[in-house]
Amino acid sequence: MESKDKIKDQINQFIQSDFKQVKKSSVEKIDTKYAMVRYKIDESDLRPGGTVSGPVMFAVADLALYVAILGEIGLVALAVTTNLNINFLNKPSANKDLIGECRLIKVGKGLIMGDVFIYSEGQEQPVAHATGTYAIPPKRPKA
Amino acid sequence: MESKDKIKDQINQFIQSDFKQVKKSSVEKIDTKYAMVRYKIDESDLRPGGTVSGPVMFAVADLALYVAILGEIGLVALAVTTNLNINFLNKPSANKDLIGECRLIKVGKGLIMGDVFIYSEGQEQPVAHATGTYAIPPKRPKA
Amino acid sequence: MESKDKIKDQINQFIQSDFKQVKKSSVEKIDTKYAMVRYKIDESDLRPGGTVSGPVMFAVADLALYVAILGEIGLVALAVTTNLNINFLNKPSANKDLIGECRLIKVGKGLIMGDVFIYSEGQEQPVAHATGTYAIPPKRPKA
Amino acid sequence: MESKDKIKDQINQFIQSDFKQVKKSSVEKIDTKYAMVRYKIDESDLRPGGTVSGPVMFAVADLALYVAILGEIGLVALAVTTNLNINFLNKPSANKDLIGECRLIKVGKGLIMGDVFIYSEGQEQPVAHATGTYAIPPKRPKA
Repeated sequence: MESKDKIKDQINQFIQSDFKQVKKSSVEKIDTKYAMVRYKIDESDLRPGGTVSGPVMFAVADLALYVAILGEIGLVALAVTTNLNINFLNKPSANKDLIGECRLIKVGKGLIMGDVFIYSEGQEQPVAHATGTYAIPPKRPKA
Repeated sequence: MESKDKIKDQINQFIQSDFKQVKKSSVEKIDTKYAMVRYKIDESDLRPGGTVSGPVMFAVADLALYVAILGEIGLVALAVTTNLNINFLNKPSANKDLIGECRLIKVGKGLIMGDVFIYSEGQEQPVAHATGTYAIPPKRPKA
Repeated sequence: MESKDKIKDQINQFIQSDFKQVKKSSVEKIDTKYAMVRYKIDESDLRPGGTVSGPVMFAVADLALYVAILGEIGLVALAVTTNLNINFLNKPSANKDLIGECRLIKVGKGLIMGDVFIYSEGQEQPVAHATGTYAIPPKRPKA
Repeated sequence: MESKDKIKDQINQFIQSDFKQVKKSSVEKIDTKYAMVRYKIDESDLRPGGTVSGPVMFAVADLALYVAILGEIGLVALAVTTNLNINFLNKPSANKDLIGECRLIKVGKGLIMGDVFIYSEGQEQPVAHATGTYAIPPKRPKA
């Protein structure tokens, strides 16, 4: 849908301008309660032995959740992570991008919760799975 | 104790040489089932609004756990995180180092579990709390 | 498939004879890396205000995971939960059975990890979501 | 302190009258951001092999958190668990009561977070460790 593509472009611009840490990331797809993000892996992301570091995988999970939430409620910079639980499952590839797929499970007024599967691109088995909750601050009445 | 200081120095060298991502970190203290690490915050760690990004706090939690485990079982590079659950509690300071204090709760043969409190240096309330589990690969019989 | 139904019956018998606590539960469906269980809600499971208590939902999540694992690796009574993370999402119905649907995400040699959606029967929104890990003890060599 | 003992008695009465599921529990101690609860283990709580079932340990963790919160904010029946993460660490004794010790880590306006160590009475190593978050509904303006 055109409107979903437009939202995707807006969120891409938003995260590129505001989040230096995720400059290597891009939003691949936005849909209802769904987001897919890509993180380009390079040398700086690797641990000895050629595996992707845990904080990089955490960053992908957190970003995928955040993007899915922005897709649902609009560009609300104030949404903050309150909890993130991540299970590391398989060794990621050293030379493949990470793909994070988020699905929102509950969209409440104050709390939004979802899960994220993280894959080394093109591989069937996930490298990690996360669940996370964001708090959405109450709207302040306009003056 | 002198021996604890020696272990601290060895682990510091080990993480400095092997983990580029944590070059901004140092081991402050090692004790029985305990580690304290420091992460120097600079501009590159901040989100808009001057808060420290979630992945940086995750990295501190993961490192503190890893260092406490190395202090207990020796320099075993193969220990891998299997699960990490983090709760974000208070906004970190933009211009204070992060301090991570880990206490190991269970040191089993195959799994080691602990918790980590993360503080902006000098502040009383923690900015985050994490629990995590590392898997220790079984020792291979020597040839 | 007939074989999956047979496994379902065996697991039903196994949990009925061995787990008094889950006498109100039954296995509804077993498939590859998948299980669906039912828990009959009665007065004894309710909190004031007519909501199902948290421990009951935990029990459903834990059982669904356990049944999915038995379906994958056979009747291994020794599999033990090492970690379970549960998010409570919507108020369950006081007069509907709980349905737990588990999908195994990683089936490793030592650790098996999956997630569980819990529903009040017939309702679209889940009442809870859990992820959990079971440890499978290594097989002892036969004497 | 006398006032802490009075609060303890009130909470004991409150949970005895309102929570049939926890009739086997009692509040042992209340202090600032702290609670200790006891759960009497009997035959009905055991799994084959003489171990305490996971849902019982979950119930102790959830209760200890709830009691610590009541001790902090008063008898607010509406506080609800949003997230609970539990790690099972050591096999509990079949014939010892469970003791749950909760410490509140963050007492916010909307969310309260704490951790719980669970012990078989008299043993040094914890059988489980949990972290959990309760949501406190906003106070409605009085009519």
